Amino acid sequence: MKLRPLYFKKDALWLLDQRLLPGRLKYTACRDHAAVARAIKNMIVRGAPAIGCAAAYGYYLASVEKEFGSVERMMEYLRRAAILLNAARPTAVNLKWAVTRMSDAAAAASAALRDFSVGATLVSRVRRSLLSEADRILRRDEAMNRKIGALGARLILKKSNILTHCNAGALATSAYGTALGIIRSAFRAGKIKKVFVDETRPYLQGARLTAWELSREKIPHALITDNMAGHFMARGEVDAVVVGADSIASNGDTANKIGTYSLAVLAAHHGIPFYVAAPSSTIDASLKNGAGIPIEERSSDEVTRICGCRIAPAGTKALHPAFDVTPSGLITAVITEKGVFRKPFDFGQKNK
Amino acid sequence: MKLRPLYFKKDALWLLDQRLLPGRLKYTACRDHAAVARAIKNMIVRGAPAIGCAAAYGYYLASVEKEFGSVERMMEYLRRAAILLNAARPTAVNLKWAVTRMSDAAAAASAALRDFSVGATLVSRVRRSLLSEADRILRRDEAMNRKIGALGARLILKKSNILTHCNAGALATSAYGTALGIIRSAFRAGKIKKVFVDETRPYLQGARLTAWELSREKIPHALITDNMAGHFMARGEVDAVVVGADSIASNGDTANKIGTYSLAVLAAHHGIPFYVAAPSSTIDASLKNGAGIPIEERSSDEVTRICGCRIAPAGTKALHPAFDVTPSGLITAVITEKGVFRKPFDFGQKNK
Repeated sequence: MKLRPLYFKKDALWLLDQRLLPGRLKYTACRDHAAVARAIKNMIVRGAPAIGCAAAYGYYLASVEKEFGSVERMMEYLRRAAILLNAARPTAVNLKWAVTRMSDAAAAASAALRDFSVGATLVSRVRRSLLSEADRILRRDEAMNRKIGALGARLILKKSNILTHCNAGALATSAYGTALGIIRSAFRAGKIKKVFVDETRPYLQGARLTAWELSREKIPHALITDNMAGHFMARGEVDAVVVGADSIASNGDTANKIGTYSLAVLAAHHGIPFYVAAPSSTIDASLKNGAGIPIEERSSDEVTRICGCRIAPAGTKALHPAFDVTPSGLITAVITEKGVFRKPFDFGQKNK
Repeated sequence: MKLRPLYFKKDALWLLDQRLLPGRLKYTACRDHAAVARAIKNMIVRGAPAIGCAAAYGYYLASVEKEFGSVERMMEYLRRAAILLNAARPTAVNLKWAVTRMSDAAAAASAALRDFSVGATLVSRVRRSLLSEADRILRRDEAMNRKIGALGARLILKKSNILTHCNAGALATSAYGTALGIIRSAFRAGKIKKVFVDETRPYLQGARLTAWELSREKIPHALITDNMAGHFMARGEVDAVVVGADSIASNGDTANKIGTYSLAVLAAHHGIPFYVAAPSSTIDASLKNGAGIPIEERSSDEVTRICGCRIAPAGTKALHPAFDVTPSGLITAVITEKGVFRKPFDFGQKNK
């Protein structure tokens, strides 16, 4: 069965609670936009494209969670909902991209429908447009991932051992995945010998989520701790690194899960190609380079506690930058649904 | 109170059970050499110099755990005990070094005392020599660590942020520590701003042991996951990396806890000095380079289970090389009790 981290049904956004995987498969319902924002913040749903899809439905929920006497009242409420949703996690660009797309859709629908209806009727018609738009964002994400998978798989040589970090799989998107989409496509093309799965501390997305996705599809894989990557690279056992992205600046500098930068330095040291896979909505054209990407700092407790067990003495505080920035110089190629981009990166070009 | 990971008292070797730290401080007694070998294998005691000291007492225990009619019978029994102790963990050279030192002492004592006594009297005199030798190995280890600390602290600049990996502290030795000995000495000299403590998966020696040692002495520190090191280096927040060693080849290639090699590559990439601290007993003169160092493979379960909780799906296997090899080219200096050695490494020289 196709793996879906989120779907909309019966007036609610249903999210697969990724904090409980791989032990428990449980969907939780969000019935208003504040619940969606909380779910994003608390990492019930995570992964930049999946967060974007969730936020789109969160925006739609804001439009139906209250009665509005006029479309203006609704628009004012949606503006505040957008601020809350955008603030849920600072680094993922797809979140802001999806919220902007939804508010553009709201503005466009209310302008277009204004001549034909007023009051509650107009409100209800704009709501319908918003649900359609959220559905479109979700469907389009899967289509983009399949395109990324097909384009990226061409770059993978036969009998490759691929290393990946965090989870850029079906769980991080609407379906199929970005980095893991490439691995899926390459596996179907018979090119994958084994996937090295970085466990990805502190949240263990690799161990919990990526290994789980690969297990379900019987793609051969080996779990490693993050600090083993260099060792296996030195032994010639890694043929390529493929990761996702949370934000890509115009020059190709890429923010992704903490640890990605170290992997990129190691890959460069060993002459191993380093690929970034992401939908084009991850590119933030307003940023010249990675220096402007905000890096989310999360709680110290997320490092010092594992499975409810404290691993460090009481007095010890941990640092927890959730992301790091990989300079474009260390990236072999960025693969979006529009094509394979290489240095110097120019994402304005299409269908390369 | 001075922290002692092991001491000999009332016919038993008492080991601080390092698997329980920092939650519980509990010593466990080993009353024969097989118990010592098991304790080393199961990581009740860990850290190359501490393992060496434990093995020395294990060897002594072998000499007293049975009645021997003649010194020849005892020597034969000790030969087999030495094989068992040496096999407990394959990578740490100090283990073999200490066992060899003990068997040399047994041979020397039995040869020297043979003219003055026979039978049970000779056996008992050799036993006394062996206990003295084990005590000497323990005392000498602490003295060496203090020397390493003093020599290494000179290399640390004022207001330094030091990054360390695993635990090369008092707990890994007889007392004081090697890498952490340098940090202790530098802290007392007012040179340490902060210590970045790599948590060091899978065993979490950094989070559990190093952070605990630093907490006890109020040395400012911040715990990080292993994959954060590169991020803080890129931000200019790390001034030097100091690590211990489990085995050093003649050319300076160094085996140490898995993750050390990745750190060395990252330090080189950022122009950060990378120091290895170890007693000279860690140098294996029989090895030309690191290619000959045996790398211990430990159980997959030690990666997939944390605090009794399984972090990966049932079908997923983990790889678990416990050490990696850092080529000497990436090492700024090796600090032993004999001096500070730099490239090209020539450990035959003394008191540089």
